[in-house]
Amino acid sequence: MDYASKSLALHAQWRGKLETVSKIDLSTREMLSLAYTPGVAAPCLEIQKDPEKSFALTGRWNTVAVVTDGTAVLGLGDIGPEAAMPVMEGKCALFKAFGGVDAVPICIRSKDTEEIVRTVELLAGSFGGVNLEDISAPRCFDIERKLKERCGIPIFHDDQHGTAVVTLAALINALKLTDRSIGSARVVINGAGAAGVATARLLLAAGAGDIILCDRQGIIAAGRGGLNGEKADIARLTNRENRSGTLAGALRGADVFIGVSAPGAVTGGMVKTMAKDPILFPMSNPVPEIMPDEAAAAGAAVIGTGRSDFPNQINNVLAFPGVFRGAFDAGAGDITQAMLLAAARALAALVSDAELRPGYIIPSPFNPGVRDAVASAVAANSAAPIRSFNRSSPVFRPADT
Amino acid sequence: MDYASKSLALHAQWRGKLETVSKIDLSTREMLSLAYTPGVAAPCLEIQKDPEKSFALTGRWNTVAVVTDGTAVLGLGDIGPEAAMPVMEGKCALFKAFGGVDAVPICIRSKDTEEIVRTVELLAGSFGGVNLEDISAPRCFDIERKLKERCGIPIFHDDQHGTAVVTLAALINALKLTDRSIGSARVVINGAGAAGVATARLLLAAGAGDIILCDRQGIIAAGRGGLNGEKADIARLTNRENRSGTLAGALRGADVFIGVSAPGAVTGGMVKTMAKDPILFPMSNPVPEIMPDEAAAAGAAVIGTGRSDFPNQINNVLAFPGVFRGAFDAGAGDITQAMLLAAARALAALVSDAELRPGYIIPSPFNPGVRDAVASAVAANSAAPIRSFNRSSPVFRPADT
Repeated sequence: MDYASKSLALHAQWRGKLETVSKIDLSTREMLSLAYTPGVAAPCLEIQKDPEKSFALTGRWNTVAVVTDGTAVLGLGDIGPEAAMPVMEGKCALFKAFGGVDAVPICIRSKDTEEIVRTVELLAGSFGGVNLEDISAPRCFDIERKLKERCGIPIFHDDQHGTAVVTLAALINALKLTDRSIGSARVVINGAGAAGVATARLLLAAGAGDIILCDRQGIIAAGRGGLNGEKADIARLTNRENRSGTLAGALRGADVFIGVSAPGAVTGGMVKTMAKDPILFPMSNPVPEIMPDEAAAAGAAVIGTGRSDFPNQINNVLAFPGVFRGAFDAGAGDITQAMLLAAARALAALVSDAELRPGYIIPSPFNPGVRDAVASAVAANSAAPIRSFNRSSPVFRPADT
Repeated sequence: MDYASKSLALHAQWRGKLETVSKIDLSTREMLSLAYTPGVAAPCLEIQKDPEKSFALTGRWNTVAVVTDGTAVLGLGDIGPEAAMPVMEGKCALFKAFGGVDAVPICIRSKDTEEIVRTVELLAGSFGGVNLEDISAPRCFDIERKLKERCGIPIFHDDQHGTAVVTLAALINALKLTDRSIGSARVVINGAGAAGVATARLLLAAGAGDIILCDRQGIIAAGRGGLNGEKADIARLTNRENRSGTLAGALRGADVFIGVSAPGAVTGGMVKTMAKDPILFPMSNPVPEIMPDEAAAAGAAVIGTGRSDFPNQINNVLAFPGVFRGAFDAGAGDITQAMLLAAARALAALVSDAELRPGYIIPSPFNPGVRDAVASAVAANSAAPIRSFNRSSPVFRPADT
């Protein structure tokens, strides 16, 4: 792929995709004295009295840490924290461009779950939220859960929840297009890492009645050997007929295939055994589980992939900027399934009934309505705790104190 | 002071003094594909092969973490990590405005030395250097030393070394003005925290022959009770006549007073006991150890303070931006005493012999020559290890790999 050499040359030229800039002019003694010593002591003392005021008096309210340990970067695997940095910088740039969120890349030189959690916990006072990124499963589940318990700010693992939100949005429209309901559709998800498990959970929250999750060893069923904690949990919530067997078996009669696995996992022959007019989202990147033309030839009615050069790109950038924009605007202390569901529904609703067709089930990232639609839905569905210093609350007045 | 309410109102309006911006335009699919997936995999793989290339392919080469635990913020003491953030943001804004350095504020929720060291060590792959800030003594010495051993990037504790560099610069010119040599001058430093100890060490490196360091209990002498490790070390290097007693006793006959202590520590009566035409740098902030008019009335020949509303402001912003600019430009792996000495001499040299007078011994922070003078001196005196991907090395060419 020619992208590789071109991207490498550009990265050598850019030497960094981000910069940190001052929002204020520091070219006079007066401003130095107000933004720095001696004036700066005043906001410091206010925050000392009430640390929550750091959301009103510093950039914390709008700043997310994009955190990785470099163990599951793109499809490249465990390449290390320094090597993950180009991705993290890109993510941060997208946060600003598509969500107006200030984002700081943080690569941690440890693969120890407890050490990663402790590190992020110790930094949490500097940030308004944490976006976990490219951390391998099943460690990512444990890390996210512990951080949610300990940090008191929104924690979001994009590989899980970003993928889940955009997949659900695409699915809502694909089901509408093929006259199915989410409650009765048979959904098969291949890949039980971060994205697969989180997508299963969000689909369940959206009312899905029949989900089968597969990993490399086939269908995940309660009681099957070798299940980690997360897979054992998800086995209890899915596969209601407690079936076993291969992915090919699971696909027989299924309405929907969602692939977050590897190239070649699905064949045209397997698609032919699915229900009539099946929906296929082979999202393995850059090479999908089955190429769109092959899936179409085998009868697929709606196809979405992770790639920008095919129709219906299921792209996380549709979700994470607006999710944090909404959570920050609302002063949300957490990101909940209700907020994610609302985000998915808002994304789906951006494609009107008049526009909806097999080649257009999900908006483009460049659709200017995406950010506000997602952010508004997330903000409106933010549950307690809501910070008192959110954007819509009365402006913090120093005279009050 | 009216600065307080004005600064508080401005901080409530700014809600953060920094923002993170993308250096590249992400409004086309083409650029998304080059700056992010799939193109970004190429620089990731280059860095995986050689993590040093993170200095050539990401913003690491120009990014400093400004790290505090909030234990010694301004003169406010231990106010906590969140409350330190307005100062850290201000510092970061100064780094960019005066040094072109991208800086990220990091406030750590721990006061445990080993935990702080471990946290910064785990983050070191994300940054090109670390500026420690407002960490209480004597913990700051231990933290800095351990980070220098473990991180492989420049570590600089500004409260120590920034103060030391600017104080030495001012002293060089004050000595010249009063016809003294640093080798024979008797120097008394009051305050044996971060700034006092580091200033003593840098003055020794510059050739000072007779330094007496005092703390709240008076003169520090080898064998005196209650000395922590750092004070015991410095006792062996200073006070060559092994004197004991009070600050007042130390000042009798002294040529130079350097105060990094507290308001009121020095009286006019004490100044009158010093050598003829004494040099006084009462730098306690905002209220100096002795007010300049009182010191002048008692015979002081040259006076410098930490304040911008008196002549000769001994201000760290003269040093830290240029120090990191120079270290980053040179690809330095460490910041050494030789680099700091060179910075101080370069700063002093910005005041020409023709300009030099009691009211002008140190340049203003707004002097446009400061940044390049300090940076060039630091870069030219950088010792090994020098990174191969510094700015002056041949541009990294992807074709080479």
